[in-house]
Formats: sequence, C-alpha cells, structure tokens
Amino acid sequence: MGLTLGELAVQFGCELHGDPQLRVTRVATLAAADEGALSFLANPQYRRQLSGTRATAVVLDAASAADCPVAALVSANPYATYARMAAALHPASPLRPGVHAGASVDPAARIDPTAQVDAMAVIGAGARIGARCHIGAGSVIGAGAQLGADCLLYPRVVLADGVRLGERVIVHAGAVIGADGFGFAREGAEWIKVPQLGAVVVGSDVEVGANTTIDRGAIDDTVIEDGVKIDNQVQIAHNVHVGAHTVIAACSGVAGSTRIGRRCMIGGMAGVAGHLDICDDVAVAGLTLVSHSIREPGMYSGSIPAEPVRKWRRLVARFKRLDSKKD
Amino acid sequence: MGLTLGELAVQFGCELHGDPQLRVTRVATLAAADEGALSFLANPQYRRQLSGTRATAVVLDAASAADCPVAALVSANPYATYARMAAALHPASPLRPGVHAGASVDPAARIDPTAQVDAMAVIGAGARIGARCHIGAGSVIGAGAQLGADCLLYPRVVLADGVRLGERVIVHAGAVIGADGFGFAREGAEWIKVPQLGAVVVGSDVEVGANTTIDRGAIDDTVIEDGVKIDNQVQIAHNVHVGAHTVIAACSGVAGSTRIGRRCMIGGMAGVAGHLDICDDVAVAGLTLVSHSIREPGMYSGSIPAEPVRKWRRLVARFKRLDSKKD
Amino acid sequence: MGLTLGELAVQFGCELHGDPQLRVTRVATLAAADEGALSFLANPQYRRQLSGTRATAVVLDAASAADCPVAALVSANPYATYARMAAALHPASPLRPGVHAGASVDPAARIDPTAQVDAMAVIGAGARIGARCHIGAGSVIGAGAQLGADCLLYPRVVLADGVRLGERVIVHAGAVIGADGFGFAREGAEWIKVPQLGAVVVGSDVEVGANTTIDRGAIDDTVIEDGVKIDNQVQIAHNVHVGAHTVIAACSGVAGSTRIGRRCMIGGMAGVAGHLDICDDVAVAGLTLVSHSIREPGMYSGSIPAEPVRKWRRLVARFKRLDSKKD
Repeated sequence: MGLTLGELAVQFGCELHGDPQLRVTRVATLAAADEGALSFLANPQYRRQLSGTRATAVVLDAASAADCPVAALVSANPYATYARMAAALHPASPLRPGVHAGASVDPAARIDPTAQVDAMAVIGAGARIGARCHIGAGSVIGAGAQLGADCLLYPRVVLADGVRLGERVIVHAGAVIGADGFGFAREGAEWIKVPQLGAVVVGSDVEVGANTTIDRGAIDDTVIEDGVKIDNQVQIAHNVHVGAHTVIAACSGVAGSTRIGRRCMIGGMAGVAGHLDICDDVAVAGLTLVSHSIREPGMYSGSIPAEPVRKWRRLVARFKRLDSKKD
Repeated sequence: MGLTLGELAVQFGCELHGDPQLRVTRVATLAAADEGALSFLANPQYRRQLSGTRATAVVLDAASAADCPVAALVSANPYATYARMAAALHPASPLRPGVHAGASVDPAARIDPTAQVDAMAVIGAGARIGARCHIGAGSVIGAGAQLGADCLLYPRVVLADGVRLGERVIVHAGAVIGADGFGFAREGAEWIKVPQLGAVVVGSDVEVGANTTIDRGAIDDTVIEDGVKIDNQVQIAHNVHVGAHTVIAACSGVAGSTRIGRRCMIGGMAGVAGHLDICDDVAVAGLTLVSHSIREPGMYSGSIPAEPVRKWRRLVARFKRLDSKKD
Repeated sequence: MGLTLGELAVQFGCELHGDPQLRVTRVATLAAADEGALSFLANPQYRRQLSGTRATAVVLDAASAADCPVAALVSANPYATYARMAAALHPASPLRPGVHAGASVDPAARIDPTAQVDAMAVIGAGARIGARCHIGAGSVIGAGAQLGADCLLYPRVVLADGVRLGERVIVHAGAVIGADGFGFAREGAEWIKVPQLGAVVVGSDVEVGANTTIDRGAIDDTVIEDGVKIDNQVQIAHNVHVGAHTVIAACSGVAGSTRIGRRCMIGGMAGVAGHLDICDDVAVAGLTLVSHSIREPGMYSGSIPAEPVRKWRRLVARFKRLDSKKD
C-alpha cells in the first residue's frame, strides 16, 4: 500500500531530496502529519509549520526545500503536484458497472455497460449515459439528456430534459441543471410565462457544486465551456455563457444573457447583472455587484468590509448626508 | 405541424402584414432564425437585428412593423403575444395519467385519476393531488398536503406536511416548501427550538424556482398570493406574506414575518429584513438591503457598482475616514 | 386532550394567575387566539395586542402580568417557556420503527431497530443509524456515515460518505452535508482538482436548514460544534470550524478554513471570508462582508440600508467622487 518517494518523484516529475525507498500511505497537513504521511507547502501562511512537521515527505518549491526537516519532493507548482499525488494515494472507489435494481430506467435510454447507476436514480427516455459514468442515488436524468464519458453525478442531481454534459464532468449533490429560466412577459398586473425552450450545454472537465442551479436557455442554450469550476449554491440564469476555465465561488449569481469570458474568477456572493459582457481574465471580489460590462482584464471590487457597529452607523450617517453637501 | 400566420393572427389577435398561408413550426431569435421560424422584437436593444432577420415572421409592435423585412404579426404587447405563440408552437408533452409503479403512495392519499405521478415520488397520508397534476420523479408530498388542479412539480420537489397549493402552480426541481422556520428562544448560552406549527399556503398561478425554500409559519401560515413568481434559490422565511403578482428574482431572501405588497419587484440577491411592511408597487434593486418598512411605491436601491480594485480601495479608504471629518 | 394550566405551571415552573383547571389544547398568536388557545408575549412590539386577546392563557413575564386580561403563566423567559409548552401541546408524530419496503439499505449498514427509515431512502455500506433516528423519504446516507441517537433527517437530505452527526441533530430537506470542498490548484490556464479527503463532524443538538450545504474538509474535517443552529441556504466551506451555540441566519456563507467562535450570531446574507478567526460572542449584521479576523466580541456591520433610487444615485455619484477630493 502507498507509494515510495521514488515512485512519486518519477511519476510526477519532482526532484527528490531524501530516501527514495521511504513510503507514504496518506496525506496530512504539515501540523498533523506523522510517519507515513505526505504533506505540502503551497501557501506562505503555513511556512512556519514546516520546521516542526513530522511528515515523511513534503511537496514544496525549490526556495523552501532547504528548510525542510524531512524528505522533500521539489516542484515548481507544489499545490498542483500535491493534488495529483493525493489522488494517487487516495483513489476513488472503483466503479461497480451496472444498473441498481432499485433504479428506474426508461427502456428508450442508452446506458453504457461500463456505467454505474445507483439506487433510486431515474433515467428518462432517450437519455444517453457514456462510458464509466457514475449516476448517484436518487439522481434524475431527463429525457434526451446526454452525458459524455467519465461523468460523476453525486446523489440527488437533476439534469432536466435535453441537458448535455461533456466528458469528466462532476456534479455535486442537489445541483439542478436545466430548470426553466425566469422569463415572464408583463400584461397589466399579471405575468405571462415565456416558454423556456433552450437547453444547457456543459463542456468537459467542468465541476458544478452542491445545490447550484443552471437554468436552460429561453430560445438558444445556456453554455458552460470546458474546464469551468462552479462552487455550491451558485445561480446561473438562462442564456448565460461562461468561458473556459472560469471559476465561480459559492453563492454567486449571474443574471440572464450575460457573457463571462475565459479564465475569470468570480468571488463568493458576487452578483453579475444581466445582458452584460465580461471580458477574459477578470477577477471580481466577493459580495460585489457587477452592473456594467467590463472591457479591461483586472480585479474589480465593490464591497466594504465590516466595522464595529457604532463606527459603522456613524459612517452610514455621514454617507447618507453626502448628497446634501456641496462638492 | 406548426401554425399558419393566419391562424396565429386570429388566435392571438394580431394584425398580420404578410401572407396568411405562410407556416411557422418553431421559435428562434432574430439573429438565428431561418425559414419556418417565428421571432419577436420586444427589447429595443435587439432592434438593429430586425433588418437582417431571416425569420418567416416577427411579432412586434406597430412602430417597428414598417421596418420588418419579413411578415409581421403586430401586437400592442409583442413579448406577451410571443410567449403565448411559443407555447402554442412548443406544447408540453401530454400527461400520462396514473401512478408509476416505482412511486410510493400512502393508501390514505387521494390522487385524481387524471394526475401523473412519476417514479420514486413519495406521497403521504391524507395528501390530495388534484386533476391533471404532474408530480415529478423523486418528489415528496407530505401528509395532508393539498394540490389544486393542473399543478406541475418538477423532480425532487419537497412539499412538507400540510402545505397547500392553488391551481396551475409550477414548482421547479429541488424547491422545499414547508420546512421549519428558523425559530429559537435563547436560554443562557443555548437555543430552545420553537415548534413551527403553521403551514404554507400558496395561491394559484404561482411559480417557484429551483432550490428555493419557503418556510412554514411558526403559528399562523406563510402566505404566497396568486400570480407570484419566485426565481431560483430564493429564501422566504416563516410567516412572510407575499402579495399577488409580486416577482422575486434569484438568490433573494425575505426574513420572518415581513409583508410584501402586490405587484412588487424584488431584484436578485436583495435582502428584506424581518417584521417589515412593504407597500404595493415597490421595486427593489439587486444586492440591496431593505431594513425599514416602505410606505411609498417606487424604486429603491442600496447597491454600489464595482470599480477597478485600486480605485475601489481608495474609495473605501475615504469612506472609512468620513466619520473622522467635520460636516 | 390538551393540558390544564395547573399542569403547565407545574411542569414548566411558572407562577399561575388564574384557574388551574382551565384547559388549553393548542397555541395561537395573541391576535388570533380564542378559547382553548395558549398564547405568549415575548416581543414588546406585540404588547398592544395583549389587552384584546381572547386566549385562555398567556405566557409572559412578571412585568406584563398585571395587564393580562386572561389567565397568566408567568415566566422569567416567556419565549423559551412558550417553546417548551408548544412542544408539549403539539407533539411530533410518534416514530414507526423499521425500514420501509421502498428504501434501499446496504447489507453492511447498521440500523438501530428503533429507527424509522422512509421510502426511497438509500443507506450505504457501513453506515450506522442510531436509536430512534428518523430518515426521511429520499434521503441518501453515504458509506460509513454515522448518526447518533434521536437524529431527524427530513426528506431528501444527503449525508456524504463518512459524515458524522451527534445526537438530536435535525437536518431539513435538501441539505447536503459532505460534498467536496471547492479546492483546485492552478496550472497554467487550467485547474487541477485537489482531492477533498476530510469529513464533516457535527456535534449534538445541531439544526441544519433546508438546502444548506456544508462541505467536507480538504484533509482535516469540517467541524460544527454542539448546539449550532444553521438556517436555510447557508454555505459552509471546507475546513470551517463553527463554535458551540453559534447561530447562522439564512443565505449566509463562510469561506474555507475560517474559525467562528462560540455563541456568535451571523445575520442573513452575511459573507465571512476564508482563513479568518472570529472570536466568541460576535454578532454580524445581515448583508455584511467580514473580510478580516475579529478579536473583540461585539456587533459588526457593513451594510447600507436602501433609499429611494434617485437619492441613492446621488449618494453613489458623490461616493464615487470621494477619491478625487482632498481630505
């Protein structure tokens, strides 16, 4: 069990300072590690924990290697290297191909024989489940939905009719992909429902967090490009287009028909208004409102950090008097 | 298949400029439409796309009709007319009345024979499901819950015990109606649970978005009046009362015992504090905190748009010094 | 049925002003109460309703007792006393021990014979369900998860593999405990998934709201201590530690690795950034960003109440000019 440091160094392209025969079986933090554990140093905030670690080996960069009191696996990108080593040391449970007797599969669905479908899952007519997919317990796959190879749906995911996923997509529990967009036409005091006829098209290597919602398009599709990572409880409205490798942190929302570029980073609880165009390489701070299109890459913010309430109340009172003052 | 322009004009009360024998089979955007497609122009932002459209016909208002290069269906409210035509061109799949063999229905539930109950749905004792309701896969209907005619529950909806829906209510996947309100009495350092004994009463023609939560009342009921439209991931706390035809955009929250009037529009990620009274015809911008009752109809805002981070940091620094300045 | 005022006074330690033989069968608000109803006065906002109440008895404090027109049950903490009396008058339905025929239980799971497992629930290998637990319809309990005695899971809860709950934990519908934390290592334009190998450990007497998400730790566990109360649609990221008896209102989010102290109160839609340390006894207002550690107990705020939009626009315009002004 486990891997030797020599094996890790070769497999993941690290320079090894230490005994290649030493063996690690698990990962641990610098502070909690003991014999047999592999740890890592990527965030400078934890650097002071390095000298006292009892890990068998630490993944770190060349600049920190000299200070490492145990074996060192030196990498130009220690966090990415750690991620890959952790996956090697803690592999996912192997798939158990086949459809659980307690699942409900429409006869007109096509499920690859290498896929695993768990209890209480429901798969609709015309759905196609690719090779080595894992459909978690209680998930519901709508009619005509398509999953590429190696997708992993955790329990209780909903993919509505016609939703399409690429390969290696991970969807966490409770996420809903393909519910109706929020489209209504006003008529007097009432609201007439506008049929939501598009789908959601998700690229490959996308991850969607727990209880996140991504609505189907009104006419055209909502699109999530390759490599996008979306955290929990994010709301993506109809006809949004999210560019490749963009990450969106928890509790954020993107309103309808907005285009977000590639490699953007949207902070937690940020809100992006509808019908905007956000260019590539934009970072948005948490709790920030983006109400206009952004044409220049860079970091944008709109949140004010908390203060003790007495000070805050004075600030707000001053703020509210700003408009009565001369310039 | 499809409908002729003559049929559409008669059925939906439009003036037709063009050949009544032309036939449309689907809807499309002005930019993407080709032969056989019906499009519409309602948002002036898309007006420049009109001249190049290849749609067979466009729904638009009288002022735009002269510029329409193809057949025109003229309506005083083109978006509402489009909504109705789209529903006619893309009808929902017909119901398959009956209870799926993989559902679990308490013998003391009453399900109208015209209703459809999908696989893995669970329906509790004393629940009543009205005519032509559709209960999606994996939905859970609590004991004594009541659904009027023509309700549509998407997969994995939870209606807790005693929740009541009117007619034609649509509830999207993952929504939870009737969980306990957040009620605790402080006693020293600890919190004593206050039983949440009310229900949730939802009117007719209401739509509730995916993963939205509406809590049951503490003693009296939480009430959602007719025609209210609630987007995804909205939180409605116990004993809230939402007036008829109000719309609430995604990720908003309304705290306990607040009354919101009729025809209000609450923007995305807005928060309304508890025990307030918001009058009819109030619009609240996104990312806005409403912390006081509102007595006058109109638009209210409290959000500050993002800036490039350097400028924003200077602004925040100035703001934080406001309280040390003389007026 | 019901209880006499004498029984209530003895059982809950109140002074009774009135006839001990009078009987109450239910609770009601002061305004809606009639004969046979027990009401309470805890919030001074409702004091004016006391004189007109038709309740049979009212729970209130000594200072209000003289003004009570009906029988009074006098308590130093009327809200907590009301909470306990309401639970006595409206007891939960008795458990029906056993596993529903429509549930799916792994042969290697251990379920206490006094527990109730409802239809469509799925329980994984090695899971342990304690005495008198109730697992709601469609809930999914992962492999190796552990529930102490008397836990109540409402329908459609997900506890992922290895999650551990103490005793008397209540989890509302749609909550997901133990999904992967949002951990990715950047490599060029792409993101490498960091395995999320920790679990979630929840203490006793914790309540978790509907559609709330609590992520598993990256290496160590995410920890929720005893007596914590979490409202609906809250997001708790990986490796967060929430101290005992803290309450977190709806739609809030806590980013990764932050420690929140004991007896804190986090308002609705508040956001707490990652890697912070919040001391005991901190209260955070709603819609507030906490972006720095807090060392002093007290109330903190960062939200600005809404104004009519014209005034607000002038304020924002002035604010945006602050950085061009001299101090």
